[in-house]
Amino acid sequence: MYTEKVMDHFQNPRNVGEIENASGVGTVGNAKCGDIMRIYLDIDDNGIIQDVKFKTFGCGAAVATSSMATELVKGKSVQEALNITNKAVMEALDGLPPVKVHCSLLAEEAIHAALWDYAEKN
Amino acid sequence: MYTEKVMDHFQNPRNVGEIENASGVGTVGNAKCGDIMRIYLDIDDNGIIQDVKFKTFGCGAAVATSSMATELVKGKSVQEALNITNKAVMEALDGLPPVKVHCSLLAEEAIHAALWDYAEKN
Ligand code: FES
Repeated sequence: MYTEKVMDHFQNPRNVGEIENASGVGTVGNAKCGDIMRIYLDIDDNGIIQDVKFKTFGCGAAVATSSMATELVKGKSVQEALNITNKAVMEALDGLPPVKVHCSLLAEEAIHAALWDYAEKN
Repeated sequence: MYTEKVMDHFQNPRNVGEIENASGVGTVGNAKCGDIMRIYLDIDDNGIIQDVKFKTFGCGAAVATSSMATELVKGKSVQEALNITNKAVMEALDGLPPVKVHCSLLAEEAIHAALWDYAEKN
């Protein structure tokens, strides 16, 4: 049912945690399942994402997509991070079952919310 | 949104893992969210559950209820374990939001499936 990459990122999620005094924090909820996701970004003066952490109460698919999404945005500029789609994250994981696609939206939405929070503060 | 006990069992889940040559194994799926849960039981000759482990791809509520359910069945007889309801597990966790009640059913169903598997083998 799940690809090797999904299972890898589910069982060994990258970048789980919090960042104190983060440049941007985004919290989103999934109306369909009641799950929540929070992403913390540490962005330097040049607008480069130096660090990123996430926390979620979501399922394995939410954990795997967030883990992969945080890997994809790390080291990128704010503009590049805005262009990383949910589709790109799922492709990097070699796909997700259709019933789980809505879970993967949490990561994209939380990253966008955190970038928005950063933009508002600057 | 979540009680302290739910967060505790979510962040430090008890009895995660597998049991080799388990006396009974139960695997169930949740049609509502597509998540899966597997429970392993080690039952001795007197019908007492000596050990129990679980694995799930489910959300935080599924992790917390499974963790609590495994704690409740450990050391119990097969008959006592059959009588532990989903409601009892949720009460032991001081409750769950309504949107998450379907997640908690995974643990009860998986334990019943594992007990059934054990009964069929004996
Ligand atoms: S949303 Fe699937 S187990 Fe909770």
